[in-house]
Amino acid sequence: MTEGFSRDSMRAGNRAERVPKTVPEAIQQVVMANRILSNEGILDALGHVSVRNPVNAATFFQARSISPFEVTPEDILEIDLDGDVVTQTTMKPYGERIIHGAILRSRPEMNAVFHGHFAAVIPFSVTNTPIRPITHVGSFLYQGVPIYDDYEPDGGMLIRTKLEGERIARHLGRHRVHLLRGHGCNIVAESLSRLVASAIHLRENATIQWQTLLSGKEAKYLSPEEAEAAMEIALFGASPIDRMWRYWVARVKRNMPDMKDWK
Amino acid sequence: MTEGFSRDSMRAGNRAERVPKTVPEAIQQVVMANRILSNEGILDALGHVSVRNPVNAATFFQARSISPFEVTPEDILEIDLDGDVVTQTTMKPYGERIIHGAILRSRPEMNAVFHGHFAAVIPFSVTNTPIRPITHVGSFLYQGVPIYDDYEPDGGMLIRTKLEGERIARHLGRHRVHLLRGHGCNIVAESLSRLVASAIHLRENATIQWQTLLSGKEAKYLSPEEAEAAMEIALFGASPIDRMWRYWVARVKRNMPDMKDWK
Amino acid sequence: MTEGFSRDSMRAGNRAERVPKTVPEAIQQVVMANRILSNEGILDALGHVSVRNPVNAATFFQARSISPFEVTPEDILEIDLDGDVVTQTTMKPYGERIIHGAILRSRPEMNAVFHGHFAAVIPFSVTNTPIRPITHVGSFLYQGVPIYDDYEPDGGMLIRTKLEGERIARHLGRHRVHLLRGHGCNIVAESLSRLVASAIHLRENATIQWQTLLSGKEAKYLSPEEAEAAMEIALFGASPIDRMWRYWVARVKRNMPDMKDWK
Amino acid sequence: MTEGFSRDSMRAGNRAERVPKTVPEAIQQVVMANRILSNEGILDALGHVSVRNPVNAATFFQARSISPFEVTPEDILEIDLDGDVVTQTTMKPYGERIIHGAILRSRPEMNAVFHGHFAAVIPFSVTNTPIRPITHVGSFLYQGVPIYDDYEPDGGMLIRTKLEGERIARHLGRHRVHLLRGHGCNIVAESLSRLVASAIHLRENATIQWQTLLSGKEAKYLSPEEAEAAMEIALFGASPIDRMWRYWVARVKRNMPDMKDWK
Repeated sequence: MTEGFSRDSMRAGNRAERVPKTVPEAIQQVVMANRILSNEGILDALGHVSVRNPVNAATFFQARSISPFEVTPEDILEIDLDGDVVTQTTMKPYGERIIHGAILRSRPEMNAVFHGHFAAVIPFSVTNTPIRPITHVGSFLYQGVPIYDDYEPDGGMLIRTKLEGERIARHLGRHRVHLLRGHGCNIVAESLSRLVASAIHLRENATIQWQTLLSGKEAKYLSPEEAEAAMEIALFGASPIDRMWRYWVARVKRNMPDMKDWK
Repeated sequence: MTEGFSRDSMRAGNRAERVPKTVPEAIQQVVMANRILSNEGILDALGHVSVRNPVNAATFFQARSISPFEVTPEDILEIDLDGDVVTQTTMKPYGERIIHGAILRSRPEMNAVFHGHFAAVIPFSVTNTPIRPITHVGSFLYQGVPIYDDYEPDGGMLIRTKLEGERIARHLGRHRVHLLRGHGCNIVAESLSRLVASAIHLRENATIQWQTLLSGKEAKYLSPEEAEAAMEIALFGASPIDRMWRYWVARVKRNMPDMKDWK
Repeated sequence: MTEGFSRDSMRAGNRAERVPKTVPEAIQQVVMANRILSNEGILDALGHVSVRNPVNAATFFQARSISPFEVTPEDILEIDLDGDVVTQTTMKPYGERIIHGAILRSRPEMNAVFHGHFAAVIPFSVTNTPIRPITHVGSFLYQGVPIYDDYEPDGGMLIRTKLEGERIARHLGRHRVHLLRGHGCNIVAESLSRLVASAIHLRENATIQWQTLLSGKEAKYLSPEEAEAAMEIALFGASPIDRMWRYWVARVKRNMPDMKDWK
Repeated sequence: MTEGFSRDSMRAGNRAERVPKTVPEAIQQVVMANRILSNEGILDALGHVSVRNPVNAATFFQARSISPFEVTPEDILEIDLDGDVVTQTTMKPYGERIIHGAILRSRPEMNAVFHGHFAAVIPFSVTNTPIRPITHVGSFLYQGVPIYDDYEPDGGMLIRTKLEGERIARHLGRHRVHLLRGHGCNIVAESLSRLVASAIHLRENATIQWQTLLSGKEAKYLSPEEAEAAMEIALFGASPIDRMWRYWVARVKRNMPDMKDWK
């Protein structure tokens, strides 16, 4: 696993996505992903995001235990897949970093993980309602969004033990997203740009789907064939994914004074 | 078709609307339309807007493939009605520019086209629910809002072929707006100011209509006679349309630092 | 009627409200009311607000036909109760200024009028659902909110004739608020501070009431006695009304660069 | 009661929470709590927050009668538990300060009180619907949220008499939150950081719960055991509470120019 980004992610790279090739690039990108997710209202004080080390697939980069709003390159830790901090530092990591390690271990074709709690997914998670693609930007959800409800007793609904991390990874399986009942969701993707696009459009799709189901009207969802094509072309295609990332970066630079001159 | 803006649009001009007379004016206006639609939250990274060339009705102006948030005059391409880029450039156009060409060809009395994905229209599009004017600023919807659901197989729900462009134009017919199932909407108008007003008030009307229908109460919509008069006077009249455009421009200038000194 | 603010409004003044005593004060206040209503998202490009002339009860002050976002003291016109512009100027007034004149004529105890279209009231107006006080800041609605639906044919749902102005005033009667079906609402109050508080809290009350009725649950509204006392003490009392006005002004000064040094 | 913060609150201190030890620290914190609650949209012109005097448990600190948006250290009054202002000043206190005194007297283990009116709680309060923890950040609600409806006649739904203050304290009992029918809510906590976290997540939980119940679907709420553990670990644990407070402070510093250099 130490050969770095997998074949699939290289293909993603060939498709002109922003896949980091060096450690500084990876750190740069994960800082920006934090800021975007904060600026777009996806993450508040809690929640976190990670990216696999491009030169060592057995570690990943993630901020120390601060809000995504505040993350700078100095706050990024290198952590191994068991959740042990590799960086020589006294900085404290997130309690739930185990989620990231466990999912990156079980999904070698993937390179980025998101954990967050935005409101739009909670009603689905507590009513056992499947999220389905209702709009083309929700197409990446077409293989299903299972709902995890197998928490450690007394764990406060947090995922912090190695055992529960493995359970989480098994439950996610080959899906891109699963929900944690009464808590939030985990997302996995080939790259940070796809990951951020997934988080933002999961919220969009869930919001629209809930508004639709409140009407009691029957809805026509994307067929699996439509969704697969839409995911490849309209969402994760080189052109839209690049346009989205540039847009979110431009908004971060406008709204966050300390990011104004970020290259 | 090369005589430029049609008789109807000239009448619009007579009514003091902001109809460009020169290419630089058209470019200026389409840049501002992009910024307004971004600033008012109608478009995010995706979606696009176009204006017919005032001195050559067979071409239109549209940004290269970037987000409306970022568009400057340097990003505007001239494109013909088949979607071929006329401007000598290596800049990449939007994949879905064919929508704009096909609609402008089939609607010689119109001069501006919008394609976007805001959430408020999706529930209507997937439940086959007609959008109807429920407020006077939604009056322009009174001739109906058909729902397109005739996508190319494997096209990812995007409109990118000449054939599908023609199908889109035929489906829109003489309407001002149609929805694309699980995707978004297209809007056509005599001018960019009317187009922007249509997009913003389509969202307003759709939001209010959905909130109303969730109650199960019977609603009194605008009658066709009321709506036609309201469209002519209260929405597209010289006074309200001018006031709206100035307002949106003033907000762009306040919120977007690089537009502060836009004349 | 030329003796200026009526006895009731003087009592309001005694209660430490911001009742203007001079023309410059009235102009100052109506500019600020415009900016507050824009800044709080109550008015966009359309809608308008007026205040009675404190030294001549037969005229009122209102902006020329521009958005509330942009209003400065130079934009304020003096208009008589028939809607004729008194100010020597070529500046264009709002088409619907007749609403303000007609209501101020029929309500000598009142000094300020609002006309606007925010989304929260429309569902009530088209489903014939009475707005009722569901929260103490909606207490001022306790005498009922009738729904006007007696438009001129072919008037585009706008109120622009003297005859319809009178019909509007009669329909409003002794109420503080009425809705215009599929259009918006008119509000009247003793002072601009009460008027702005009424507009903002009408939106709040309507939003909460609609959310509540969507549940189908029976709601306990404020009793008339509760509402009357809450209006007098908790909403229009000298202390809350003053605190609210200062707060809205402070936000205008933060958000609108050209108002930063407004005294 | 003059020994200052109680044993329980000291334990909170041991858990690295931001418990003030001196009067200047308490004032500093209560100013910041005001600004956070304003900046996060929890309080507008009305509502207030208090903190117990760390060196005299029989008094508390609270702003004079201005909006939380504007509060500076110069605006903070010392008030005793009967609501009498201790500070030698002509500044006017809030009418409802009695709420704070009465609750702090009946809850010696607590040190901070919130009173506010955000929209999300009102539908529950008027339909007698119990708020329950539906998300892990709403865990602190697990002991129930009673609904107060025992107002003084003619009091305008405000809590301003000593007698009603005592009734409020009795009704709150050992709970952390109760609702006031058609008015808002009171919250009590060990520290200002927990108090602010409670207010923000009460809104979050109430919003999600109402959206969920509108669907008519049965929801799985947190069990009492889950909720208690989640409250201790995931919400009020030293790590999340510290991360949240720092985040909210960072946002205040970005959005409020006069707070930019707050240490």
